[in-house]
Amino acid sequence: MTTPISPLAPAAFPDLPEIAGVRFATAAAGVSAGVKYQGRDDVMLALLDEGTTIAGVFTQSATRSAPVLDCQAKLAKAGPDDDIEPAAILVNSGNANAFTGRAGDESVARLCQAVSEAAGVPADRVYTASTGVIGERLPDERIAGVMGDLVARAGQDDAEAAARAIMTTDTFAKGASTEVDGVKIIGIAKGSGMIAPDMATMLVYIFTDAAVEQSALQDMVSRLNTGTFNCITVDSDTSTSDSLMVAATGKAGPAGPGFEDALHGVMLDLAHQVVRDGEGATKFVEINITGAATVQDGQRAAMAVANSPLVKTAIAGEDPNWGRVVMAVGKSGAAADRDKLSIRFGDILVAENGWVAESYTEEAGAAYMKRDEITISIDLGIGTGTGTAWTCDLTHQYISINADYRS
Amino acid sequence: MTTPISPLAPAAFPDLPEIAGVRFATAAAGVSAGVKYQGRDDVMLALLDEGTTIAGVFTQSATRSAPVLDCQAKLAKAGPDDDIEPAAILVNSGNANAFTGRAGDESVARLCQAVSEAAGVPADRVYTASTGVIGERLPDERIAGVMGDLVARAGQDDAEAAARAIMTTDTFAKGASTEVDGVKIIGIAKGSGMIAPDMATMLVYIFTDAAVEQSALQDMVSRLNTGTFNCITVDSDTSTSDSLMVAATGKAGPAGPGFEDALHGVMLDLAHQVVRDGEGATKFVEINITGAATVQDGQRAAMAVANSPLVKTAIAGEDPNWGRVVMAVGKSGAAADRDKLSIRFGDILVAENGWVAESYTEEAGAAYMKRDEITISIDLGIGTGTGTAWTCDLTHQYISINADYRS
Repeated sequence: MTTPISPLAPAAFPDLPEIAGVRFATAAAGVSAGVKYQGRDDVMLALLDEGTTIAGVFTQSATRSAPVLDCQAKLAKAGPDDDIEPAAILVNSGNANAFTGRAGDESVARLCQAVSEAAGVPADRVYTASTGVIGERLPDERIAGVMGDLVARAGQDDAEAAARAIMTTDTFAKGASTEVDGVKIIGIAKGSGMIAPDMATMLVYIFTDAAVEQSALQDMVSRLNTGTFNCITVDSDTSTSDSLMVAATGKAGPAGPGFEDALHGVMLDLAHQVVRDGEGATKFVEINITGAATVQDGQRAAMAVANSPLVKTAIAGEDPNWGRVVMAVGKSGAAADRDKLSIRFGDILVAENGWVAESYTEEAGAAYMKRDEITISIDLGIGTGTGTAWTCDLTHQYISINADYRS
Repeated sequence: MTTPISPLAPAAFPDLPEIAGVRFATAAAGVSAGVKYQGRDDVMLALLDEGTTIAGVFTQSATRSAPVLDCQAKLAKAGPDDDIEPAAILVNSGNANAFTGRAGDESVARLCQAVSEAAGVPADRVYTASTGVIGERLPDERIAGVMGDLVARAGQDDAEAAARAIMTTDTFAKGASTEVDGVKIIGIAKGSGMIAPDMATMLVYIFTDAAVEQSALQDMVSRLNTGTFNCITVDSDTSTSDSLMVAATGKAGPAGPGFEDALHGVMLDLAHQVVRDGEGATKFVEINITGAATVQDGQRAAMAVANSPLVKTAIAGEDPNWGRVVMAVGKSGAAADRDKLSIRFGDILVAENGWVAESYTEEAGAAYMKRDEITISIDLGIGTGTGTAWTCDLTHQYISINADYRS
């Protein structure tokens, strides 16, 4: 089955600037026997110079993958900020190395050793990720077999190839960049299905030439993750492999006052791109909650609407079915009062005072739903809590992709 | 759009015995302008003799419908068990009378008054329900217009017609019955989409000629609901209108020791029928959890697997994708240990010790998935908690039904 490129995809992959201290290489290792991986690169290596600080956020799944467990253990042991050794990130697509028992742990150890020997990076500074099918042994020997070639060819200008090598059901490669206060930030991401918070099901790698202390970088990434990747959902399913890592090489000097905002911009851009490539997506949808009793309630209501299959199928059908929005708010667990709720589709007031608005017409609602970017705003009318979620519609193509993924 | 009858439907509607003290009538009131309701009965009235005790369980939604709020208020005010006045249950399909503001409350009041006047039942003993589209004014005058006719024609043998009159997206009418210790129990139900616990999105009415005290009946129904309707899910969406009511006329004398088990059987039968009519369903799926740390964890894991779109699409595709089962357990929030988990499809051991079982073959798994009844058993291996959920697969037909429901 060939999946067409998402209609919500950007026109082209962005030009990403080179980041001093970061080199990329990709190769075709034949990790998966799957047809869709034949003839394409399925391994990417990022080599990071000495002095690079690294932060990470990972899936909360109780069945997280062997690579995720390894990355978390290594980041937890990060030493002092002086005398930081070089590092590497190794990612393969086609096989998730998840639920592969002790063999999975051993594959990770062998891959870290292979990178260490080929690139002169300590094994405890090698971070790996694997994405693809769960439960099949990772053919790590094939990846180790291309390691010398990867290290030999690594260059600063291959971020786009890296973004392509980590794709699975993605229909387009995802990249973003910005510059602020004399430093650059670039990022690549993959993700399309099995996307839900805690965190969104995907791999994201962000690189900057700014200098940021290890602990400050981790704090910043964790904080920004809450309002970006943890606010997106495609299908409410949470991956065993979600990984977000940010590496700061320090080559361009200290991060300035605008750095956190700039990093937030790159993270949000990549998070939105993952939704735009949601499996089968034809609409990009933003849910805004205001007037909730608490911030927790606001986010809970936003995610309940964003995850509702009935809301998402209505959007796919271009049906302004605000009744299903009410249903989803009602089941969210957030405090709500039927008669204080109001709903807007874009700028169109749809419902207020517990019923359809007098000014609302079905024609106006139906016309709005034909857009490919939809905003649904819900004011619960009882407090000051807010929440935001980004999602996509639920279409026949999602079923086609997922009823036939392994074959 | 015509929806074919579910392939999981029973061969025929069961023969339901008459229950002394209960009379049914149905009529075509033209509640909905929708094509699928034209020419069919869309109102049902059940008249209950004096002395009938009534228990109910309703949706937990914060945006529950006007009829639900009215029923809950009336049941909360139930008086002593002696000198119980006659009662009535009035249900319409095609319009949910939910999120219709004050007008919705007024419709309920007018309908209760109309039943009261036509049937000589106190208005505070009239229980109503409405199912269908949310957010449109209920044309209660049309229902009131057929009330005299309904009361005049009410008879004991029309339970099947009653089951048909309350259908919406259902593809078959649902009924069940049993006899125990000299008393009879019959039940009818509707429900197909917007099905999730707290409680499953549906209407269920059960009638018995046993005598059961009001408070004992309510306790029993609440208790049995936990293991029946609250264990089913079609799409994780919770209705604004869920209602389960049980009426005991007492005409056959006191309930015996086998009554609670018999009532459980009827409730479970109806709950399973709702899943068998899940929108677009082609497979009936049971999820069994054992070895959970707690009962709460067991149920949480069961529902997470049952609600996972990726598990449900895999089942639709007859793909023995146990990796997605692992994923769903992992995201459930239940305590789990990758290396202690085991999974069975039917009697086939699929995975254990954190990986695929040595004895497992993809051929055996694929052959099992072709069945139309699938059991997935997961032993978490860490405690004694258990959980069960019943669900169906997620197919193209679900998308077709819900992307086009209102038109």
